[in-house]
Amino acid sequence: MTLLRHLRQCNQYRPEAFVPLLHGTSRIGLVRRDNVGELGRFGDVFRIDENGVRLIAEGDFAALSAAIDRVVEDLVARGLVPKWRNEFFAVSARWGVPPLFKLDRGALAFFGVRAYGVHLNGYRQDGGALRLWIGRRAPDKKVAPDRLDNLVAGGVGYEYGLFATLAKEAQEEAAMPAELIARAVPVGALSYRMEMGNGVRDDVLFLYDIALSADFVPRNTDGEIAAFALMDAHDVMERVRRSDDFKFNVNLVLIDFALRHGLVTPDDPEYLDLVTRLHRPLD
Amino acid sequence: MTLLRHLRQCNQYRPEAFVPLLHGTSRIGLVRRDNVGELGRFGDVFRIDENGVRLIAEGDFAALSAAIDRVVEDLVARGLVPKWRNEFFAVSARWGVPPLFKLDRGALAFFGVRAYGVHLNGYRQDGGALRLWIGRRAPDKKVAPDRLDNLVAGGVGYEYGLFATLAKEAQEEAAMPAELIARAVPVGALSYRMEMGNGVRDDVLFLYDIALSADFVPRNTDGEIAAFALMDAHDVMERVRRSDDFKFNVNLVLIDFALRHGLVTPDDPEYLDLVTRLHRPLD
Repeated sequence: MTLLRHLRQCNQYRPEAFVPLLHGTSRIGLVRRDNVGELGRFGDVFRIDENGVRLIAEGDFAALSAAIDRVVEDLVARGLVPKWRNEFFAVSARWGVPPLFKLDRGALAFFGVRAYGVHLNGYRQDGGALRLWIGRRAPDKKVAPDRLDNLVAGGVGYEYGLFATLAKEAQEEAAMPAELIARAVPVGALSYRMEMGNGVRDDVLFLYDIALSADFVPRNTDGEIAAFALMDAHDVMERVRRSDDFKFNVNLVLIDFALRHGLVTPDDPEYLDLVTRLHRPLD
Repeated sequence: MTLLRHLRQCNQYRPEAFVPLLHGTSRIGLVRRDNVGELGRFGDVFRIDENGVRLIAEGDFAALSAAIDRVVEDLVARGLVPKWRNEFFAVSARWGVPPLFKLDRGALAFFGVRAYGVHLNGYRQDGGALRLWIGRRAPDKKVAPDRLDNLVAGGVGYEYGLFATLAKEAQEEAAMPAELIARAVPVGALSYRMEMGNGVRDDVLFLYDIALSADFVPRNTDGEIAAFALMDAHDVMERVRRSDDFKFNVNLVLIDFALRHGLVTPDDPEYLDLVTRLHRPLD
């Protein structure tokens, strides 16, 4: 078994099956060709032309969000989008510019908009041994129930900045107080594009590491993580290599961690492929 | 001034100005269109066709190396390749497979073959301050004289593995003994493709970090580094941002270091571009 298969899995995407979702001169999403007709039914919101699907509704953030909400409501009613998550993500042409509208998490894949998340590697250096805190996702999670996960992870909702998201999730998922999570270090990001449901996830994950001492033990408070375990980092990577026990994108976060901490070394024949393919260009 | 400009500089490459150098079903290099005719003069070694330049000489590593040597000798005599460096690099279809032939360092750019290097970030964590050992290249270096450099760096010659190269350069450039360099940690790689001279550098740099204590002071033994200085890591990154004091590709190594150590943070508007563009796909 290889590590590279996880990168392949998270980048299963057929460009020819999608058309761009456009706003002005920017691409803001990707719509599967067989869904284009569904959006054509909303002539006051979208126009279909040879370039793709164009968002033509006018107005400010609130007006565009309301227009899109009406479309999502219809798509949910027709079974084309899974039911509302009541969690909203900001949609913009690129990271760092003001959002155009907010979109329910359940509809991200249908519109193929870029979504952002935060993942935290919590590690302990006990003498010579590097160990990682690993969570097991609750059995009732919508995505990847029972799979293994990072110490803390979450999507970036539209009201929150990156670090606010990390602090909120750290408190809820692992009972990490504000003064502890303040010591987390940003260590990069990874990106992938993966067909899922009736659309595509176009995800960017911002990555953080935190060095923890023996007196910290994570405790879940929101029911999303069933249990935590402190695992030897080499054992974690063996498990990533040999199994699909981890949530699909958590494998990528752990491969990036392993590359940065010397747990995967250049004598691995996949080394350069792993290094270069963790970062899909943000086209 | 921005950090991203260094990535742009190291990726100045016009694909339309080059044709592939082929061997069997593999691309092994890139030849500038206006140099193709020069290789056509060696009909027993190369064949020019609509796909590019094809290496047709037959034989083992020694025979191919000798055939290529004769071409290089002619190119040097005609002033198309800078004079011999008498340092040989292995040429293969990709990293980790047995080399087809060896090529003088001076001819790497003319043939546009992929070359591999090692770069070592030597850092000290003194209380809250992260500091980096920075070298100043000797004024008589062929490439980037007087520019600032990593603690240790070098190209991977054909007789040496990665770690042997690192250990050899660490001894020569910084008087680091074997037991010290053994503690260096591989932390990834970066890649760029940059037109230079009358060809292109298609480089992959393997990156290492080493944590150093206060009792280590580097001392150059081969005359390639004029002086070392211990600089605050934030000051180093300000200098990368504002000047061209560092050798062109060392800027990339330091940007990667800064991303991994939280010295550049996600609130930098260039963050995602930096993360994704340090790793050019190895096509």
